[in-house]
Order: sequence, then C-alpha cells, then structure tokens
Amino acid sequence: MSLPVSEEKPIELYVNDRKFATFMCTPEYLKELALGHLFTKGIISDMFDINIMNACDELNTITVTLNKDIPEDQFDVSNVITSGCGSGGQIQEDIENNSIDSNLSVYDSLFRNFFVDMYNRSIKYLKTGGIHSAAIADSKELLLVREDVGRHNAVDKVIGASLIKRYDPSSCIVITTGRLSSDMVLKALGAGFPIVATRSIPTNLALEIAQKTNITLIGRGHRASDKIIYTGHERVK
Amino acid sequence: MSLPVSEEKPIELYVNDRKFATFMCTPEYLKELALGHLFTKGIISDMFDINIMNACDELNTITVTLNKDIPEDQFDVSNVITSGCGSGGQIQEDIENNSIDSNLSVYDSLFRNFFVDMYNRSIKYLKTGGIHSAAIADSKELLLVREDVGRHNAVDKVIGASLIKRYDPSSCIVITTGRLSSDMVLKALGAGFPIVATRSIPTNLALEIAQKTNITLIGRGHRASDKIIYTGHERVK
Repeated sequence: MSLPVSEEKPIELYVNDRKFATFMCTPEYLKELALGHLFTKGIISDMFDINIMNACDELNTITVTLNKDIPEDQFDVSNVITSGCGSGGQIQEDIENNSIDSNLSVYDSLFRNFFVDMYNRSIKYLKTGGIHSAAIADSKELLLVREDVGRHNAVDKVIGASLIKRYDPSSCIVITTGRLSSDMVLKALGAGFPIVATRSIPTNLALEIAQKTNITLIGRGHRASDKIIYTGHERVK
Repeated sequence: MSLPVSEEKPIELYVNDRKFATFMCTPEYLKELALGHLFTKGIISDMFDINIMNACDELNTITVTLNKDIPEDQFDVSNVITSGCGSGGQIQEDIENNSIDSNLSVYDSLFRNFFVDMYNRSIKYLKTGGIHSAAIADSKELLLVREDVGRHNAVDKVIGASLIKRYDPSSCIVITTGRLSSDMVLKALGAGFPIVATRSIPTNLALEIAQKTNITLIGRGHRASDKIIYTGHERVK
C-alpha cells in the first residue's frame, strides 16, 4: 500500500539565462506554471513575448528566453515560491491605476456546477487529498483544471494554460480551492480576470483590493444555497 | 450582517533596526509570530537572545533588538512572507547534520482528542472558516492554540508562544490544519519538535526530510480509525 502524499519538488525558473524564481511545486504542467507566473507578474503580456521555452523535469528547470529585456529589480536570487507562496508585497503599487474592465456576467446557478466539475476532474485530490485545484471557466462551462500542492501554483498553471489556449481573460473566471489572500487577488488582477471564485473565503485585504480594482469575488462557491458574492454583484445574474 | 472574511495585514519585522521580513498575517500575537519565525530560522536560540521587543498593531511593525549580531545574508528586503508562505530553499543545507533527538512518545488514541480540542478552541475558524489553526501539545494534552490566515504563520505563533512559556520542544508536538510541505517540516526541525501532526497530508519532499531528520509525521490526525503515521512510528504507542 502506498501512503497518500502530494508531490512537491523544487523547480528553478531561468529567464534570459538568469535565475528568476524557485517554485516548490507539483512538477507537472511546468511551462504553464512559468507562463502563468510571468503573466500575472506583468513580465510578459502575451505569448509573443516568448522566444524559446523549455521545461525539463529531470533537471528540475524551466528556461525561458524572452524577446525583450526585463527590469533588473525583477531578478532576485531569493525569489523562492514555496508551496503556499505568492509573490506578495508592493500592494499599493500594484493596484494603483489598475482596474478590471469587463462586461462578463454569469448565471448564479452555474457556480456550483463549476465546483462539482472541478472536483470530479481533480485526479490527484480524489486519489490522495492534500492538494489544491484551480480551474478556468467561461460564462457557460469549465474549460480546464490543474492541480498543485501550492494554491498559487495551481492558479498560475490555469492562467498559463489559458494564455497558451488564447482564452480572453476578460471573459473568463478563475476557480480555486484556496483561500483568497491579497496575493491571489493580485494574481487575477495582473492577468486580467474579472471574477475569482473560491470554495473558501477571502481575507479582508483581498476584499479591499477586489473592491478597488473592480474584481468580482465569490466565496463558498461550491454551495448551492449560500454562496457569498462579496464584490461586483453586477457580474452575477 | 457582516460577511465572513479572514484578517490579513502586512506587518513589518525589524531586527536590530533593519527590515528583516514582511508577514502577510492575521494581526494578533505578533510577538509570538516574530519569535517563532526567528527561532525556526535559527536566528535566535532562546529568549536570552532578545534584548528588547515591541509589537505595534497600529504602526504594523514588530521591532526586535537582539543581544547579538546576525549574519548579513539573513537580511533580505524582498523577504515577504505571504499568507501561505514559509522561508523555503536551501533544503540540503538545512537538513545536513541536523536531526531530532527525542524520546517523546504519545498514546495513539490521544491524537484525535488534540484535533477535537484544537477545533473547539479555534474561535475565528468557528466564526468564519477560511483560516488555519495550529497548536502545541505535550504527551497528555493540548497546551495552546493560535490562528492565522497563513498556515506557516499559525505554526510560527505556537512555536513562539511555547518559547515564551519555556516549553521544552523535544517533549512537545506541533499540531496543524495545514498541508505539510517541505518548509513546514523544516520549521519543526529548526525549532526542535519531534512530532508534527496534520489533519491533511505531507508532500513527498516533506516526508523525505522527516525521514532523514528523525521527525515523526502524522497525517489525517483528526481521524480516530485511519490516522496515518508516516515516519517515526516508535514515538506512537
């Protein structure tokens, strides 16, 4: 009998031949993870910014060569993204002059379906528990699901995948099993997603950021009757 | 009606007049948080290393003056501990020549009680959900409980509190609601706790570190019948 554990491995991300970050992550969908991370941090604005990208699970590295230089202060050797960690900090700077402009609206009744569907497609969670899931939905259905031992990594992976598939963020919803702390909402803001739904709840700081930047936050989204729409009610019909 | 949210606030930690870290945390028990963080990172080895310590919730700062200098490389302006983040990295260095020496043993049947007791004393969780709890137990009973939006912060708080109360780490157990990723186990190792129990499960990397450093890891600890003892079975009788 094998004991239930989640997979966690340190993966180094190199950008333009320099170490950019270390993910403590579940080592799958590594390109999506790196893309989502760079996109939510505003390092890349689309796939055209990528020249070459390689992910090698055996060498535990992802290497990205961009078609442009990136600011020196974005490199930081201590930039370790542990299994539960986002990029944090600089909140004021991130939300100033940054707001979501989107007319997306979604039927209230669909949210529970999104969560049920995500649960059923969370292979690792169903096998072992102890891992986070994230998904992207449009106004009708769930489009893709990814899992990672870190809630931020799982969200980075679905955002990276949606970048590859050329989904329009302004028409999509980020679904997550994780608590919505400030860094989770900043991630959605950086990538341009108007709605974030969790089966958990947000923090007061996450809520404040969502209000200021016009993001719809939904908590307890898996519940049919007592889902909570915290902000941006106009997007739920 | 007030909506359920968790409290999250950026709190700056200054050590010897220099910025050491930023916690994205639930702003209570701030001294314990700082102490636990510095202790698990090996910056302080006991309370005698502390000269003066102040925590000001209004100014969002904790200031610590030590009776000694600390290595330059421990200061890092980007050292932001987000609500889900530990200190990560340098795993090999941390576990080399570092192993837990303790004869603590605990009755198998007690673990469920610890979790039930922790749950009943998790005031914020009972009110809103969406927050982590941690606790310290000895071989008989739960000694204290703390809550934080970050699973690492909650563990830092109970470890800091146990330092203030002069509990002997080698006779105590860390109980947590959070997943046991590598950084969580490194935290217990740094502070000298021989047993870590979670209601969730560990990662493969956390398990590997526990095996190498002689830490007992227990998963699904809240369950009476199918608790999982991953490592260090000899400490459970």
